[in-house]
Amino acid sequence: MKIILASASERRHELMKRVVDEFEVVVSDFDENSVKFHGDFSKYVMELSRGKAENVAFKEGKDSIIVGCDTIVAHRGKVMGKPKDEKDAYNMLKALSGDVHQVFSGITIINTESHNILSDSVCTYVKFSEIDSEEILKYIATSEPMDKAGAYGIQGYGGIFVEEIKGCYYNVVGLPINRLKTMLKNFNYI
Amino acid sequence: MKIILASASERRHELMKRVVDEFEVVVSDFDENSVKFHGDFSKYVMELSRGKAENVAFKEGKDSIIVGCDTIVAHRGKVMGKPKDEKDAYNMLKALSGDVHQVFSGITIINTESHNILSDSVCTYVKFSEIDSEEILKYIATSEPMDKAGAYGIQGYGGIFVEEIKGCYYNVVGLPINRLKTMLKNFNYI
Repeated sequence: MKIILASASERRHELMKRVVDEFEVVVSDFDENSVKFHGDFSKYVMELSRGKAENVAFKEGKDSIIVGCDTIVAHRGKVMGKPKDEKDAYNMLKALSGDVHQVFSGITIINTESHNILSDSVCTYVKFSEIDSEEILKYIATSEPMDKAGAYGIQGYGGIFVEEIKGCYYNVVGLPINRLKTMLKNFNYI
Repeated sequence: MKIILASASERRHELMKRVVDEFEVVVSDFDENSVKFHGDFSKYVMELSRGKAENVAFKEGKDSIIVGCDTIVAHRGKVMGKPKDEKDAYNMLKALSGDVHQVFSGITIINTESHNILSDSVCTYVKFSEIDSEEILKYIATSEPMDKAGAYGIQGYGGIFVEEIKGCYYNVVGLPINRLKTMLKNFNYI
């Protein structure tokens, strides 16, 4: 059975290499707006990951293990997406400064032969230290925040804002590799 | 005032770039065996970092901010060093499997003009999931464990063993960049 990662993210491709030796990538064209958020972050990311995995399962057909993943930033009860522009990035980082937020990833694994579907979610708490306007503007000038949910990348320059985390670090990067490995092992897929 | 990092570690050099735009590297020849461990990990790593920073301060002389850092792995009350050989690496990873250990870094900053000395320590809890012999042997075959305290690198393939952490991720990599930034900022060094 071949393993297929349903993600366009380069970061996820790199992390997936630590989980399995060989896999293929098929990008889903799942419409994320079709999933509505009803206040439960775990459920929300699991539905998003399932949508991606199912979309690829329909396209790819038989004899595959499809892995879908979706990651969001949650702050004070709301989902924080990618910043629309630099002003939006500034406001997001200002909001996260000195505060704790959560990062949720949903993972769905579909076996297209047995039709087994397994979803799970992982949550990591992230505490930012106080950051001043000068630091935020300097960070935005690197353009790193612009394509990232919550306007920061913990694996890049944004890592300096993070005082501590509780949970899986790689979940914050975008793929909770330890949990994914456990799920795949439990089903004898690896 | 120039900032000098008293470390030979490439990993620390890379992380230091996220803290300050410009710095120099001067490697200390401090004898780490001159510091004895008396049961207090925080005190131990602070003494080691101070030894490195002072060693470079004596060599470099005036008008510098010297940053020394030392990182250790602590498991069940003992310091875990770098593995002596592959068998040692296997035993270390087997001991860490399914258990929580701690990573301590000590940081010392010396201002060679004012003679101010500031030391602090950072602790991160790391929980490994259960790993089996096959996974350990596969990991050792990458040779990644051999030059690392505790026989793993969280930033490499070893990251897959880590179920969750509590504290600073970059402390586990070898330089707690958020704390170091805060220390340098508090003294107006950056």
